[in-house]
Amino acid sequence: MNEITFSYEQLYHYTTSIFSQMGCRQKDAYLAAEVLLSADLRGVDSHGIARLTGYVRLWESARINTTPNIAIIHETPSTAVIDGDEGLGLVVAPHAMKVAMTKARAVGTGWVSVSNSNHFGIAGYHAMLALEEDMIGIAMTNASALVAPTFSMERMLGTNPIAVAIPAGNEPPFVADMATTTAANGKLEILQRKNSNAPEGWLQDKDGKPSTNAHELKSGGSLLPLGSDRVHGSHKGYALGSIVDIFSAVLSGGSYGPWAPPFPAYIPLPENMPGKGLGHFFGAMRIDAFRKAEEFKEHMDNWIRRFRSAQPVDPLQKVLIPGDPERATEQVRRRDGIPLSTSVLDELKQLSEKMNIEHPF
Amino acid sequence: MNEITFSYEQLYHYTTSIFSQMGCRQKDAYLAAEVLLSADLRGVDSHGIARLTGYVRLWESARINTTPNIAIIHETPSTAVIDGDEGLGLVVAPHAMKVAMTKARAVGTGWVSVSNSNHFGIAGYHAMLALEEDMIGIAMTNASALVAPTFSMERMLGTNPIAVAIPAGNEPPFVADMATTTAANGKLEILQRKNSNAPEGWLQDKDGKPSTNAHELKSGGSLLPLGSDRVHGSHKGYALGSIVDIFSAVLSGGSYGPWAPPFPAYIPLPENMPGKGLGHFFGAMRIDAFRKAEEFKEHMDNWIRRFRSAQPVDPLQKVLIPGDPERATEQVRRRDGIPLSTSVLDELKQLSEKMNIEHPF
Repeated sequence: MNEITFSYEQLYHYTTSIFSQMGCRQKDAYLAAEVLLSADLRGVDSHGIARLTGYVRLWESARINTTPNIAIIHETPSTAVIDGDEGLGLVVAPHAMKVAMTKARAVGTGWVSVSNSNHFGIAGYHAMLALEEDMIGIAMTNASALVAPTFSMERMLGTNPIAVAIPAGNEPPFVADMATTTAANGKLEILQRKNSNAPEGWLQDKDGKPSTNAHELKSGGSLLPLGSDRVHGSHKGYALGSIVDIFSAVLSGGSYGPWAPPFPAYIPLPENMPGKGLGHFFGAMRIDAFRKAEEFKEHMDNWIRRFRSAQPVDPLQKVLIPGDPERATEQVRRRDGIPLSTSVLDELKQLSEKMNIEHPF
Repeated sequence: MNEITFSYEQLYHYTTSIFSQMGCRQKDAYLAAEVLLSADLRGVDSHGIARLTGYVRLWESARINTTPNIAIIHETPSTAVIDGDEGLGLVVAPHAMKVAMTKARAVGTGWVSVSNSNHFGIAGYHAMLALEEDMIGIAMTNASALVAPTFSMERMLGTNPIAVAIPAGNEPPFVADMATTTAANGKLEILQRKNSNAPEGWLQDKDGKPSTNAHELKSGGSLLPLGSDRVHGSHKGYALGSIVDIFSAVLSGGSYGPWAPPFPAYIPLPENMPGKGLGHFFGAMRIDAFRKAEEFKEHMDNWIRRFRSAQPVDPLQKVLIPGDPERATEQVRRRDGIPLSTSVLDELKQLSEKMNIEHPF
């Protein structure tokens, strides 16, 4: 696969221009670009600049409001519900996370459920915002239905990711960011581009039979919940994805389950949507609402070092801490640049022409 | 396997007598019996009366304080840290969950991390306490290390369950209660008793090689995190188990990771424990801290009905809602009684003799 590499700054400048051209306020355009490209930096290529054309198409279909009035519609000292006013999730989500953090500053923890939003990029970005203030950050979102619950032939849930970021002291933070499916959709896209088969346990076909065809989703197939099948605990992945859906969209008044709005603009909105837009859920817990932050971080360092030094099965593959691979990728890409495939580049060139924006490609 | 069935009342009376004889206060003995037997009612036989002799042995080893001073050692409006004073987890946990609920009543949500406790029975019982007050309940606990993280030969984590209970309206509540491993230890015990092999993906041997020997844990083998292997997302199960460990024991000052104290009293306590006892973590979120409870519950009913009516792969196996199988078992067992295996009965008879307690067996 041919790739060309661009610096973060080049892509940041370009992406900001696109969001500005869409009509975003300047600071929102910067923020949206930063959130989107954090995925490219961390190696989650499926959620980064490769999605930029998708956001533009949603905007063209009048499904994104680039000057939203993001508003708290209900609150208590430790909670809030936010209506994203059809804003870019990339902008709504950090706003909501900051509300959670403000509440945590006041009463120890803050929990914010969001309706009427759109795709928010990678969950990890939002959870990690909490780290700057010695808080634990939690972020999750529902998404359009691609996943069949255990025993179901039908797609009912999105890949519904959960991210949890936990500060440490001298060690880097613990950052888990995971789809509640066996494999994230992005991993499938890599196999599709290579025309490779998927491993068993990732997919089923439209009749609910196990499949290894990486293109199965296009023929009505489904991704499988973490656990793959009943014997290996898929009911647990299904439960996790459901919890994300309920916290994000039933608590907030968003559209849940099979009614979650799709990201591709060519797919019509579901009929009889029971709520408004996509939903997210954010949490912030101040460490010193539980114990002294310094003390906690010393123990996190101890936790991390002990797990890192666990006897590995293969001496060449050490035990990792959640967040290690993404952090390693980010170091390399900040230094050497972000590689983009020629198919993404072709899309971005077309986008630039359409939007009349200069591009570095 | 031979089984004899007893009524809930018989077992409740008997179990209360044992806890009283251990020196528990009367109300604690009742509570501990109720929590313990909720596992038998719900069909989680591994965590019910079958463990009673284990609790007695811990008490004989002076690892359980039957008259604990359960104390809040730090708090904010939405959080508390509780020292369980080496009490029975069966008593400490509902106490802590009620503190979380009191805080939720005041400021919308409550979050309680607990140190210096012991095995707390099934997580689901504690999470479900919140349902009575139209709150979402969350319960988790760390446990002694039986699980190897992805790429690890060593056992570093317990089966670290997570339970989430969400109220509905006319439908029964959504209750997920799951170990963060592919299979709970209790499922393995069933196979051990039958001398059957375990499915692939549940276990590895002491060298980290995949194993189907249901007795593998006795030879230094490990349970595997939900996902089974790297290709099927075991790093996600490992991350979930880690989050439970950190929320339960690093936040509270408990003993975490491979240093979590073991349930079997014959296993010595780990050396250099970094904190006190087992840890738990509880959360309570008032529904009306987000939206009107009636409105939420109507949408939960809609959610549940839609998922229940998803097109099944096999027409004879409908799609289930988390909590359905346990609720069905509870209905049967409340009516027909709780079956106990002869090996459990033999243990309980010996226990009765030792404790000088009348028994119905």
